[in-house]
Amino acid sequence: MTPDRPGLPTPRLIALDWGTTSLRSWLLGDDGRILDTRRPAGGLLDLAEGIDAADPAARARAYEAAYLRVCGEWLRDHPGIPALACGMVGSAQGWYEAGYLTVPARLEQTARELTPIRLDEGTVHLVPGLRIPSEPRHDLPGDVLRGEETQVIGVLELMERRDAAHTLVLPGTHTKWVRVEDGKVASFTTAMTGELYGLVTRYGLLSHTATTARRDDTAFARGLTAGFSSRDQGLGTALFGARALVLDELLAPAAVADYLSGVVIADEVRHVLPRYPAADPIVLCGAADLCRRYAIALARCGARAEIVREDAAATGLWSIAVAAGLVAPERHRR
Amino acid sequence: MTPDRPGLPTPRLIALDWGTTSLRSWLLGDDGRILDTRRPAGGLLDLAEGIDAADPAARARAYEAAYLRVCGEWLRDHPGIPALACGMVGSAQGWYEAGYLTVPARLEQTARELTPIRLDEGTVHLVPGLRIPSEPRHDLPGDVLRGEETQVIGVLELMERRDAAHTLVLPGTHTKWVRVEDGKVASFTTAMTGELYGLVTRYGLLSHTATTARRDDTAFARGLTAGFSSRDQGLGTALFGARALVLDELLAPAAVADYLSGVVIADEVRHVLPRYPAADPIVLCGAADLCRRYAIALARCGARAEIVREDAAATGLWSIAVAAGLVAPERHRR
Repeated sequence: MTPDRPGLPTPRLIALDWGTTSLRSWLLGDDGRILDTRRPAGGLLDLAEGIDAADPAARARAYEAAYLRVCGEWLRDHPGIPALACGMVGSAQGWYEAGYLTVPARLEQTARELTPIRLDEGTVHLVPGLRIPSEPRHDLPGDVLRGEETQVIGVLELMERRDAAHTLVLPGTHTKWVRVEDGKVASFTTAMTGELYGLVTRYGLLSHTATTARRDDTAFARGLTAGFSSRDQGLGTALFGARALVLDELLAPAAVADYLSGVVIADEVRHVLPRYPAADPIVLCGAADLCRRYAIALARCGARAEIVREDAAATGLWSIAVAAGLVAPERHRR
Repeated sequence: MTPDRPGLPTPRLIALDWGTTSLRSWLLGDDGRILDTRRPAGGLLDLAEGIDAADPAARARAYEAAYLRVCGEWLRDHPGIPALACGMVGSAQGWYEAGYLTVPARLEQTARELTPIRLDEGTVHLVPGLRIPSEPRHDLPGDVLRGEETQVIGVLELMERRDAAHTLVLPGTHTKWVRVEDGKVASFTTAMTGELYGLVTRYGLLSHTATTARRDDTAFARGLTAGFSSRDQGLGTALFGARALVLDELLAPAAVADYLSGVVIADEVRHVLPRYPAADPIVLCGAADLCRRYAIALARCGARAEIVREDAAATGLWSIAVAAGLVAPERHRR
């Protein structure tokens, strides 16, 4: 164990973004500076394999073991360090159900609704998700997110424009569009775009048409065109277009994946973009290549996009930890 | 071997509908009467497993072996009996590439463009598919079908209204909408609806939300409503609605599959139906439960549907065999 010494970075917080398919953990120092990172393979799904869904105690043990596997060294070296986790780890299928705030929700509220899990090695706090309740009277489904609330907090922190109104798009397996007004999440929308793309290219019949993908921006642009024009044909028809183009030797099998990526992203953007105010630039936060794709798709619709770096979750977790009093906001002075 | 005797049914044709995921074969007698049926598990995909896609000879051997496994007894008992096969068995990934007729195409043309495969046990003839060529100038994808041309021929035969204009819907993994006018296929549209449903419910994240399905027509109807209203949200968002409804305890996990079935079918119907003339009843041909679902979806749009029995392919194959001179149209007289 390294004692805290002036001049050397002092670890203050273990921060985790623990989702369905991935886990990222950071050791954060003063002001939320990233001191160390662990990104083990796999997320909740891998962990849940082989565990009886009806046995929460067995599941909790599996999560605890996984947590100690990833962060044990940090916990040993810095006893008493607080830990904060966001993402599906706080869902009913996760470590422990951390609840939801109902939208419209003030983002500061998040820090007041943490769920603690007490371990011998210290407490892990879980961040609540956000929900839009379903409307039973009109049978209108609501929506949920978990993890993205923390990314949003991080993005606003990074942009230093907390109080303005923003439309954020967080692309991924389930892309989230989030509208923030005056520090409140006013509404949001989920689109399973990344998941549909993954299913079709990995398990679908088109996976037999596609050969190993090489990045092909022209194919992506052509897919966008097809997806934007799918107003009169639908996603299930637009996707199949790739097969006809390959048979007619107008699309290389290696370009099928990028073509399909264009189709699904365009189909999402043309449906969801009109539901959000048009004026301000859209803020994109996520994997660099995905953000680039969304920026191109948005530009086709005349919408300007601004890309914020991917690890906004670490910033968001620090910000929540400060607001919750888990860590001191200022550099610890001696 | 049973010699042909008056009074006993005489086998005239081995007919196969050999698709990507299933194989159905019939032994047909005079007038195309079904004398015997074989429906082994699996289709092209199972057969292709473990075979190098770049080795057509190995693939051909595998198809021949599969064919003899299924139909060998019929071939032994009725030497010299002709065989006719439709479906993906005639695709580039199948036994032998049987080509396509370009739409608009006269259905009679099909019988003049058979591709023979000569075996020691007799010749197997393959039915050509149909294609709409892509338009390279506007980068508009065309479309293809294979197997459904034979179902269409069978449906028209069964309906005894060959020359009228019809809109046919053949629901399945890839649902096909086919417009027939004066014995010609004027146009058609593919929607990967069944495939998307299968991917999402089998491999998708919602498969963790769904428990074993029990048929739930109310959930299907609610999914239809969501899918028809998805004009302003898109398929990727409408599908995710099931997750929110389950979390809000407004949808039982066992009803998720039927809800999603409603969402995808509605999304297809609302996109594709407007592309076809409104007046006449839509003719549905396929698995009984799927046809029932499409009929309900079509009724929501004010479109009347007529369901034709599933084994139209056998009728179509007989009809093509007669037109091609492989069998005599009339009962063999002695």
